[in-house]
Order: sequence, then structure tokens, then C-alpha cells
Amino acid sequence: MKMAHLVASCSFTPSPAVKTYSKSPSYCCNVTQFQSLKCSNLVLKSCPKRPKKSFVTRASAAVQGQTDKTQTPLTGNQEASGHSSSKPKKVMVIGGDGYCGWATALHLSNKGYEVAIVDNLVRRLFDHQLGLDSLTPISSIQNRIRRWKSLTGKTIQLYIGDICDFDFLSEAFKSFEPDSAVHFGEQRSAPYSMIDRSRAVYTQHNNVIGTLNVLFAIKEFSEECHLVKLGTMGEYGTPNIDIEEGFITITHNGRTDTLPYPKQASSFYHLSKVHDSHNIAFTCKAWGIRATDLNQGVVYGVRTDETAMHEELSNRFDYDGVFGTALNRFCVQAAVGHPLTVYGKGGQTRGYLDIRDTVQCVELAIANPAKPGEFRVFNQFTEQFSVNELAKLVTAAGAKLGLEVQTKSVPNPRVEAEEHYYNAKHTKLMELGLEPHLLSDSLLDSLLNFAVQYKDRVDTAQIMPSVSWKKMSAKPKTVSV
Amino acid sequence: MKMAHLVASCSFTPSPAVKTYSKSPSYCCNVTQFQSLKCSNLVLKSCPKRPKKSFVTRASAAVQGQTDKTQTPLTGNQEASGHSSSKPKKVMVIGGDGYCGWATALHLSNKGYEVAIVDNLVRRLFDHQLGLDSLTPISSIQNRIRRWKSLTGKTIQLYIGDICDFDFLSEAFKSFEPDSAVHFGEQRSAPYSMIDRSRAVYTQHNNVIGTLNVLFAIKEFSEECHLVKLGTMGEYGTPNIDIEEGFITITHNGRTDTLPYPKQASSFYHLSKVHDSHNIAFTCKAWGIRATDLNQGVVYGVRTDETAMHEELSNRFDYDGVFGTALNRFCVQAAVGHPLTVYGKGGQTRGYLDIRDTVQCVELAIANPAKPGEFRVFNQFTEQFSVNELAKLVTAAGAKLGLEVQTKSVPNPRVEAEEHYYNAKHTKLMELGLEPHLLSDSLLDSLLNFAVQYKDRVDTAQIMPSVSWKKMSAKPKTVSV
Repeated sequence: MKMAHLVASCSFTPSPAVKTYSKSPSYCCNVTQFQSLKCSNLVLKSCPKRPKKSFVTRASAAVQGQTDKTQTPLTGNQEASGHSSSKPKKVMVIGGDGYCGWATALHLSNKGYEVAIVDNLVRRLFDHQLGLDSLTPISSIQNRIRRWKSLTGKTIQLYIGDICDFDFLSEAFKSFEPDSAVHFGEQRSAPYSMIDRSRAVYTQHNNVIGTLNVLFAIKEFSEECHLVKLGTMGEYGTPNIDIEEGFITITHNGRTDTLPYPKQASSFYHLSKVHDSHNIAFTCKAWGIRATDLNQGVVYGVRTDETAMHEELSNRFDYDGVFGTALNRFCVQAAVGHPLTVYGKGGQTRGYLDIRDTVQCVELAIANPAKPGEFRVFNQFTEQFSVNELAKLVTAAGAKLGLEVQTKSVPNPRVEAEEHYYNAKHTKLMELGLEPHLLSDSLLDSLLNFAVQYKDRVDTAQIMPSVSWKKMSAKPKTVSV
Repeated sequence: MKMAHLVASCSFTPSPAVKTYSKSPSYCCNVTQFQSLKCSNLVLKSCPKRPKKSFVTRASAAVQGQTDKTQTPLTGNQEASGHSSSKPKKVMVIGGDGYCGWATALHLSNKGYEVAIVDNLVRRLFDHQLGLDSLTPISSIQNRIRRWKSLTGKTIQLYIGDICDFDFLSEAFKSFEPDSAVHFGEQRSAPYSMIDRSRAVYTQHNNVIGTLNVLFAIKEFSEECHLVKLGTMGEYGTPNIDIEEGFITITHNGRTDTLPYPKQASSFYHLSKVHDSHNIAFTCKAWGIRATDLNQGVVYGVRTDETAMHEELSNRFDYDGVFGTALNRFCVQAAVGHPLTVYGKGGQTRGYLDIRDTVQCVELAIANPAKPGEFRVFNQFTEQFSVNELAKLVTAAGAKLGLEVQTKSVPNPRVEAEEHYYNAKHTKLMELGLEPHLLSDSLLDSLLNFAVQYKDRVDTAQIMPSVSWKKMSAKPKTVSV
């Protein structure tokens, strides 16, 4: 099965603006082998055996004018950042078909930015391979974009391809000429990266090389382009001192310097983000790249103003043991009468945020760009909770809805501290104007109601953790679901 | 040209113990494309299109007994580490054909360890591709090992292959069963990693994925194996506070923790070592891997007790702008009457060590292994010098030999501080018993004499820096030499 076929077999009219770049016989051979789990190197990129000449542009017809005359007015933030109101800023959302990326692309489009999504759609493939599915039914990226156009008149351009393929990425940059590149385009699950050696290698190769390519594309084609890169709070680990935003001032033996905050990541995924951060910081210094690293906490919720406009705009909602995150998974467990599964002692404390704040934070970063050469780090979350605290909140919210919610401790599949100090700073985005949606009773009610609404779609076999940090093996593993 | 052919076409008898593993039609296709600089992904590994079944073992005949009865007695250090004298410890030297790796392999063999070299010999290919050559003529790895056997009676086993190919690495681990793995097997030049995008991507992929594979091989096949990994002092950058050995105790807002020392690497190569360090630290914690990270300074010199035994054992000596390092290059410049090329202001200060101390340090690390789960970091250098100080020392030593040595400042091709504080700790290896060879007048005399001896082999076109940090491009570049 070739990816080009996969794309071509969708019965879509490439409208409003779909660009499919592909030199993909090689890409596809890799995807196929990945699926069969018999390939030791699961790198989604061009096979060196293909001559470069095979690069082709397909289905690039029907691209409409890149400047959409129906843009909504620019926001105050955009004006505040010195952006001329006559020409909307162009934002490339890499990974724009994913959980955070899709919501962000719609939000930015709604706010008057000209948006292009770059995505290889491999996240959808992972669902097929692992037998997982979003709680919410999600439409194809083509239908999503078409629906958005029909509802709002706004065009989102689409570049389907792999950013590890530099030729593809170059074409996308040269064609779209972004003012900002928001980079969500990474394998983003810690358990996925810990399934087996192949997934660990895939995660680090895909994330690190993809980001390197984005940096080179900016240097080569869009030197002024502001990189907004999604990092993770997990890069910091759980130190016994306060976590600062990216940097810490240290006085040592009578001398003082402000240095990158020490990193203690705890999965091959989190490590890939640490690697990215170091690579980006270096290119800011060496090449003058302007970059904002958003160290995001755990995102919960599913609806934003934009995704709520139509069911075809619905965002994915993962509750499984591989891609699901704590609060979303707890709500689904409560909805179906499954005990809330607390890993170990449940004292694990992290920063959390509503997905409506994710999109707001990205917009704030774009509207207030880093200076040339600046490597800026924002901790992107609004509140801290321990897993036990979340379980209590969900139990109480469930009771209000008449749900009897149990909690059980399960052996922790991860290697992590289960009781620890945690105090992370998160003031920089507030200073830029972030107005947080805190986890109130009413939000939890609506999240729980949302889970109840879709509970017939829940596959309870997906809920329990299936990936062990300690038992991880070099041998290819299929996760049983 | 296939790598298997490359190996097979050497007129060597696979003796004393040469094992060539290869599923290399794909490996070779990559090498070929790499050479022609027309390939966007220069990854030396198996092509996913090859079915796994094509893995073959070639030329594995004529392997002699793995325990060599002619071993010399074990050292005190080995006995001190609780090693039984009846069975020598097995050390796998990954990258054992390189500058530090070859000297280390011989030294450990001489000290009674059973040694296997794992190397894909790609460093020799880089010389061909960039038109570079070692000052010293170096023999093939097969002739080197044969000569060592004939001189000492000691067998060094040889596994030719790419550690990014996990099947190859698995076979090497299962066959040799190492007690320690010393990992020099990385692309180790900062300028090389800054030639173009392809070299940057190659360096990070090769180094990071290779090390991940070594970690998985240890977990899977040799859980007790002690990983001794070569890092670099360059991981730390030039902070305005004292550099500690791997970790720093920080008191912040009234709380205290000991955390990984912040990293500020300044090339894609140095960054790859930072990534490795984070990955290794995680596996120590998650899997109980025992690891020593040797953050090595700049190595100078060429002769060790073992490499000096015969010209066929001679080590490589790089003086070019890509692989050459400061002091070695200065000696060659002095020998041929070329001005010493100081990059920028010359205040750049680094840790330095004699190659005889490299081999001693590695031996000390092996003889005193890290505990299971321990991630131990040693700063491996003996003295600090600024570039200007080195230039003065070489000028003075040259005068004693009747050489008139000039110095000139050239525009700094790198992005780095040229005047800065630098004070790096290096006590842990001393505590284990390191007896440093300091850079005395007599050593500089002999180094200079060595350079004079080979001065007819110097290609002065190789001396000047040819790679610019700022002008680096995404486009493939051939370095003109």
C-alpha cells in the first residue's frame, strides 16, 4: 500500500487548497513495513535508492489565491505586534491534523491568520496499527478543511508530506512563505516511544531530524520566520527545586550565570523534546533563528470555539493507554463505569491546561514573536494537579451526574517518582495576556457529559496501560488491545 | 560499489579473527550516494526495502578461540576491581579503527583484556570524500590487527559493520559477549557536522541512533555490560561558572537538588553528544544500565607505547581544517612554515590531554566500573589552555628546533566566545589513579619533531578552515581542499 494511493483513494475534490507533495514510493514502503512490524528501521522518509528526480507534485491543481479576501479582522494582539492589517500573517501549522494542531489551525484561521497545515497524517496510521480509535469520530483532513471553508469562507491550505523529507518541506516553505511556523509535527506519546526499540528509534529520529529540517528550511527560505515549537514540561522531570521557564540563574563558587534549566526527561519521547530544545537554542545563537519553545503541560478537553462549530470539525479525543492523557482518560473511565486507574501512589504532579488555552497560548506567541536570535521558553500550563487530586475531582464531578466512580491503583508502568516536590513557574504567557480556562466544576461536568455522550464508542480494552518502561525490549512488539 | 565488495576486495586473510557481518547492499547504496553528495538522507543503515532474511554472515570463518591463552597478566586495577585473573575481561571497542579508538584497543589488549573492535570504517571514507589524509600513513585495519598479533601474540577480534544496523550490532554482542563496551563509534568532528544539512543530519542520526542501539543491545544481550561512552567537554560550552563533572548542586529559592550540569553545545556534533548523555542517563535510571560518560577534552599527540611498536600500528594524525584539532594542527603548521592559525581573538580556552592519557583513562573507567543503574560522568582532560597559550608554546618549542614560527589571526569560522571564563573540574579520574602526561617542553619537542618527520606528506591546502558556522547551508557542499 502506497501512501500516495492512500491519499489518492480518498474521494475528495482538492478544494479549497490541497497540495499533495510526494516522492513517496519510498515513504510508503516504509509505512508498509512499519505496519507489519518486521522492519528494523522505521524511518518515514525518502529511500536513498530513489533518484531525486522522482520528486513530483501531485494534485496541486485547484489551489486558490493564497490571500483570502474574506479574512476576519486582525486581533488586537496582532496589531500590537506591529503587524500591518493589510496583509494577514501566514502561519504554517506543522502537525495540523493532530489533537492540538487541528484546534490551533482552526483558531488561527478564525483569528484572521492565513493558515497552511503540513502533516503526513501518520498519527492516523498509528491508530490503525495499534487498534486504537479516538472517542470522537474524526473526519478526514480534506473534509475537515472543506467544512471549515463552507462554514467560514476561510481557506486552510494543506501540504501532505513528511517533514523528514527535506525536499517536500522545502517546497512547502517556498510555496507558502510562512511568517511563523508552529511545530506540532512530532510523535508525541511517551508510551508509544517505549513500546519497543523500533518505536524509540522512530520517535527520536522523526522528532529530532524533522525539527532539524524545519530549522534548515527557515534558514534557507524564510530567515525572518518565527519558529513556535511545542516542547513539554516533561523535559524538566521532577527536580527538588522550583522549575523556571527554560533558564535558571545559578550562583556557584562565587560566580553567577544564567544557564539552560537542567533536563531530566523520562521517556524516549520526552528526551526527543530535550534534544530539539538544545538544537533550536544552538541555531538561534549560530544563525539568528527566532524561536519560542512552548513547554506544554498535559492538555485536557476537546472542544474549542472553532471545533464546536460542526461535527466534521470535531477534534480527536484519546483515552487509551498509549495516547490518552490522565484527565481525559479519567473522564472516559468514569463515563463507562471503569475504575479510575491511578499509576502507583498517584502523587505524580504535573502542569495541566485546557485545550482552549493551548490555542490561545500559540496565538499569543505568534502575535508577540521572539526577536532574531532569541531562544525564548514559556511554560505552557495553567494549574498543577497530582493524579490523586484529579481522581478526586472526577469522582466528585461524577457523583453530581449520578455516576458512581471508583478508583484503583495499578502498578506504575513508568519509571518516575510517585511522591515529589513540584513547583513550576508559568508567568510569561500570563504576562502576554493569557486568560486561563481553569479546571472548574462546570468544565469537568461538561467533559464528563461529553464522555458519556460517546460512551458507546469506548473500547475498554484500550484503557489499561500496555507499555512497560522496564520491560521494554529491542524486539518488535505489537500492543494487544 | 558495495561495502561487502569493498571489504572482500582487500587481499586479507581473515586472521587472526575477522568477522564481517553484512546485510549491506543497502548500506552500500547509501555509502555510494553519500559519496556522490546527491542523496538527501545520508543514513548509513539498512534500507527498509530489504527483507530481513537477507541478513548474512560473511567471512566469519577462521575465527580463533575467543580466549587467547597468551594473554599478559592482568593489571592491578583489574584485580582491584574484583576481576578474576583466570578469565580476562572482554572489552568491545566501538569505533576501534579511529584516532582514540585504535590507541585504546591496542592499550587494552596489551593490558590483558580480550578486545574486539567494532567499526564500519566510515572515517576512512570521509577522508576520501573530502580529499583529506592523515599526516601519518595508516595501515588497513586488517593489517593493523595482523601486525599486532605477530608482534605480541595477542588477538583482537574485528566486527566490520554499522551500529545503526541493530541486527549487525546484536550479532556482535551475542558473539563477543562483552563485559565492557567502549563507545568511540561516532562522527566526531564539529566542522564536519557543520558542512551542510546532510552532514548535520547524518551526524545526529548516526550518533544518537547508534548509541540508542548500543543501549538496547546491552539491555537485551549483556545486562551487566558496563558502557564507557566518549562524550566531550564541548557539551558544557563556556559558562561563566565553574564546570563540574556532569552534575551540579543547586540551591534555589531555599531548596537544593543535584541536577545534570546545564549543556550549551556549539555544533551539531557537540549537540549529538548532549543528546547521547541524556539518553544514557535515562536508561541507567529506567533499566539499570551501568554507564560512564567520559567528557573528553581536546586530544593531542599520536604515539602510545603500543602504536610506537611498529609503523603498521601507527595511529592517524589529523591536521586539516575539518578533523584536525588545535595543538596537533599547530605542530604541523610550525613544521611546514605555515603561520599558526588562531581563530578570532584566541582566548578560547579548553581542556586538553595527551592521547596516552586517553587510553589510560578508558582503562581506569573499565577497571573501576559504574554500579548497576549508575550514570557516572568524568571530565577527561589534564590541563587547560587558551588557543593563544598553545600558539606561544608551539612558537617557543619551534625556536628551540630552529623553526621560525609565525602566528596569524583568521576570521573565526565558528560561533563561540573568544574571551571567557573557563574553569572545569577534572578530579574523578585522578582519584582513580590517572597519572597525567602533562604538556611539557619535551613532549612538544617530540610532537614537533614528529610533524617535521612527516612534513613532506602535508597538504597545506587542508590547513585553513573551510567550514563556516554562519554560512552553513541546506544545500549539499563539497569542501574544496
